[in-house]
Amino acid sequence: MNVDFINPFLTALLNVTTTMASLQLTPGKPRIKADNYAKGDVSGLIGMVGPQTRGSLSITFEQGLILEIMQKMLGENPGKINEEVADLVGELTNMVTGGAKKLLSEKGYEFDMATPVVVSGPGHTISHIANGKKILMPFASPFGTAYIEICFEDL
Amino acid sequence: MNVDFINPFLTALLNVTTTMASLQLTPGKPRIKADNYAKGDVSGLIGMVGPQTRGSLSITFEQGLILEIMQKMLGENPGKINEEVADLVGELTNMVTGGAKKLLSEKGYEFDMATPVVVSGPGHTISHIANGKKILMPFASPFGTAYIEICFEDL
Repeated sequence: MNVDFINPFLTALLNVTTTMASLQLTPGKPRIKADNYAKGDVSGLIGMVGPQTRGSLSITFEQGLILEIMQKMLGENPGKINEEVADLVGELTNMVTGGAKKLLSEKGYEFDMATPVVVSGPGHTISHIANGKKILMPFASPFGTAYIEICFEDL
Repeated sequence: MNVDFINPFLTALLNVTTTMASLQLTPGKPRIKADNYAKGDVSGLIGMVGPQTRGSLSITFEQGLILEIMQKMLGENPGKINEEVADLVGELTNMVTGGAKKLLSEKGYEFDMATPVVVSGPGHTISHIANGKKILMPFASPFGTAYIEICFEDL
């Protein structure tokens, strides 16, 4: 998997948090995920299916960061991860994947998105099962960390 | 969503656990998921994309049940949810969704499967975000409970 394929996801998350939540995340260096798991408190997951490949994406947030995003986007902070926060994470997952899909389509990569699923649970970990390299992208903020993970077959 | 669309998933899980693990699960009545969350310790999730619809499936296991399935299928029980258990849950998710896909294809419903993602974390909950009814199917056993949840748009 080349950097052309990774950057659109990174760019899409930065665009979404900047424009929707006025929050500037600091991207770390994308790396191939080995044993180091991204632990977080709420994750949005989405499947992607295209003629050239299929795969999965996850966006995992630590509680402090997603609550700050909710505060900035919607003006409310429930203080814990509830159904409204899960809906917001689903929406962010759709927006980030949709943004990357648009950028990748311009480069000739096409895929369709499934519908997102959101998982809530303190300190959970994610394993992408596709036969392909797992790319982990960390994003830092004063409120906590977010991680995008993507995995595609046959790229 | 009609029962024709639900039963293939129920049948596929019963087939897989019976043939692969000699374990007879007892299916409960499928119901529309409202606020009652299925809590579990490890979940396999997969996206589905077809010309008529798109959606998501999750299979959630309590720890005791997935460890018993691992014992029966592979002859080993790691005593906790580790990477091998996550791989097994990914494989089961592929087998159940693939089995249901085959049954549904015979009825004229076609979809492609994305690659699965497995989430590990004690007592996590799942929210399917598609604009459609969420169907929850419980499966009981002496070792713990499993839940299939499916959600499709436009059915």
